[in-house]
Amino acid sequence: MIGAITKQIILSQRARLTPPSPIRRLAHLSTQAKANGTKVYHLNIGQPDIETPKEFLDGIKNYSEKVLAYEGSAGNEQLRKAWSNYMNASLGLSTEPAQFLITTGASEALIFVFMICCDPGDEIIIFDPTYANYIGFAAIAGVRLVPVPCTMDSNFSLPSRFEIEKRITSRTKAILLCSPNNPTGTVYSRDELQMIVNLCNEKNIFCVVDETYREFVYGDRQPLSVLHLDPRNDKIIVVDSLSKRFSLCGGRLGCLLTSNKEVLQMSLNLAQARLSSPTIEQIAAAQMLNSISSDFLGKAIKEYEKRRDTLYDGLKAINGVNVHKPEGAFYAIAKLPIENAEDFASYMLRDFSYNGATTFVAPAAGFYMEGGRGMSKIRIAYVLNSEDIKKAISILEAGLTKYKSIK
Amino acid sequence: MIGAITKQIILSQRARLTPPSPIRRLAHLSTQAKANGTKVYHLNIGQPDIETPKEFLDGIKNYSEKVLAYEGSAGNEQLRKAWSNYMNASLGLSTEPAQFLITTGASEALIFVFMICCDPGDEIIIFDPTYANYIGFAAIAGVRLVPVPCTMDSNFSLPSRFEIEKRITSRTKAILLCSPNNPTGTVYSRDELQMIVNLCNEKNIFCVVDETYREFVYGDRQPLSVLHLDPRNDKIIVVDSLSKRFSLCGGRLGCLLTSNKEVLQMSLNLAQARLSSPTIEQIAAAQMLNSISSDFLGKAIKEYEKRRDTLYDGLKAINGVNVHKPEGAFYAIAKLPIENAEDFASYMLRDFSYNGATTFVAPAAGFYMEGGRGMSKIRIAYVLNSEDIKKAISILEAGLTKYKSIK
Repeated sequence: MIGAITKQIILSQRARLTPPSPIRRLAHLSTQAKANGTKVYHLNIGQPDIETPKEFLDGIKNYSEKVLAYEGSAGNEQLRKAWSNYMNASLGLSTEPAQFLITTGASEALIFVFMICCDPGDEIIIFDPTYANYIGFAAIAGVRLVPVPCTMDSNFSLPSRFEIEKRITSRTKAILLCSPNNPTGTVYSRDELQMIVNLCNEKNIFCVVDETYREFVYGDRQPLSVLHLDPRNDKIIVVDSLSKRFSLCGGRLGCLLTSNKEVLQMSLNLAQARLSSPTIEQIAAAQMLNSISSDFLGKAIKEYEKRRDTLYDGLKAINGVNVHKPEGAFYAIAKLPIENAEDFASYMLRDFSYNGATTFVAPAAGFYMEGGRGMSKIRIAYVLNSEDIKKAISILEAGLTKYKSIK
Repeated sequence: MIGAITKQIILSQRARLTPPSPIRRLAHLSTQAKANGTKVYHLNIGQPDIETPKEFLDGIKNYSEKVLAYEGSAGNEQLRKAWSNYMNASLGLSTEPAQFLITTGASEALIFVFMICCDPGDEIIIFDPTYANYIGFAAIAGVRLVPVPCTMDSNFSLPSRFEIEKRITSRTKAILLCSPNNPTGTVYSRDELQMIVNLCNEKNIFCVVDETYREFVYGDRQPLSVLHLDPRNDKIIVVDSLSKRFSLCGGRLGCLLTSNKEVLQMSLNLAQARLSSPTIEQIAAAQMLNSISSDFLGKAIKEYEKRRDTLYDGLKAINGVNVHKPEGAFYAIAKLPIENAEDFASYMLRDFSYNGATTFVAPAAGFYMEGGRGMSKIRIAYVLNSEDIKKAISILEAGLTKYKSIK
């Protein structure tokens, strides 16, 4: 229409503050590179290549209901039982099914926790660098994340109690930990976890632990849940996920686990608003947890440990690259001898290839709350087999050389 | 521990304000009744009994990837294309796949819309009674819902423009419609929709239309989308769902559809924070939409129309019950000759049975924002076959007689 004036509506501040995922926002460059015939080695996203257990895929294929109905809002009862039994049997815990609320991925569990613990403007203490999507959840929930810096020089271990405590204010509602850690691969020690639990007890705030990577610990480490320390503490909320442990990220199977009845009731109210999580995956996951051998995870952990070693040795050998040895999960942070890792990551996808292939890494800046600290760093997910990791690192090295020569 | 002082942490106000679902909060009484051997006719929840299309269930069974990976945050590309093609072919529209963002049910799409349009304290105008979960989404997003009353005497049709316009303030960001309507079954006319679109244009606010029940219109009515009125208006956001149309509520397949690029970008940012919707259902839904015959829906609509007639005739015949004839969806509001429908609904589950069976209805109060208006009303979902509806209504009638005799 000629002459029509279209005013644009201003969208909400919280929407404008929700950052695009640093893991996903360069995805279009990767799509373009592939369209141009370049093979892309994905070290940017924690999407494991380990095959999903047959027990789960069989459960999907065997779904035989004639009507795909809503599941209960708190989750499939069989899955709540199976998840509880699985944790009890494999970790020596004594959880109960009623303490579990099944969510659409750990993402949804974390959004529920942020919503329940905090009103807009309230604070949650996190450790910096942090899982980037926590920043998104905080924007959605209007929560102010208060970062405590961790450094590569200290292997990203937890800072002193003093450093944490001095950031607690009257608006602090929780301390949020991810152990083993995404994005650093650091595994917090029992003492570190105990220090956080004690601090939360004293300050009367929640201790929220994201245990998505709990079993992925290397060397002679054993999986440690915060529930091992204090199984009935009603200030503890565990967020868990089957995505990585059983290589079924696309199943969106998460949970919230707590002995705090009020938190469970409030979570159920939020869960009822969205009716239910997807039904079929829950049924399949219950069957899987009831029947899978511990061998599956044992093999996966060995495989990741091998990849970790390959990655660490490969990166350490590159001139100017600084990297710590991750103790768990399947991530590492590496410091590159360049100024702007986002520019470099884009360059690798847009302008560089080596024998027809390139490497996709995530710029680490998006994982740092404190501006500037992550600028020359990248986060690597070692979710490819060792041969591919070697190739991906050679390409990274060649790309670095070329990039430095033209910048 | 003797002497230990456990302070309880006060949870957030927004969590405490999120109401339990009026559809689900009596579910425990139903579970108990079943445990006692009573058959329960579910007229409380819009869970259709129509069989899920074979095309979808086959898609689930045929899932053949070895690794269940994350889907793209905006949704499976094939599904975005298929949904767009399906709407274009069946409704004569000209949508494009890029205008679709796939969500975990329409619930998630609505939460995204509330988050994007509003900051906490902003307002959305809705029509009262309303879909109860909108109240939950509003609590989650800190949005103030401003109800415009609709009355049973006017078949729950839209009030005058004057009544709506006078409620628009500087904080109003959207008008939200559900047509065909849950919980009333009312189908808004083209003129009513046009009035809302015009008002939104003039006031520069969003027009959000929940078209979950779009095709469920009876008599000689044809499905009407708000996009038929103004296909490229960037103030229009459509929320859609496959749950009811294809009887796959547990698949959690929804979408947000708009030509507003900024809304799509902000939705994508929110979607990236939760990584992806479940993968397998998206693939199966794409296959289904590409191959299903229009016969499936045609038959389902005829079946619901028959049920609607059975329900309406049955309720009208009960002494003291007031009911309007719903024109679409599969819900009706009925006014009972009692004071407290929640108490009556609980009574039916807890204390009453007739030949070993009882009827579960949803108290309508939870669907009314304005206190008091829904107290003696119930919402009925006619999602059972006509024979069962007849039985359920006989039981309801017997229960009403008994209830009135003892109160």
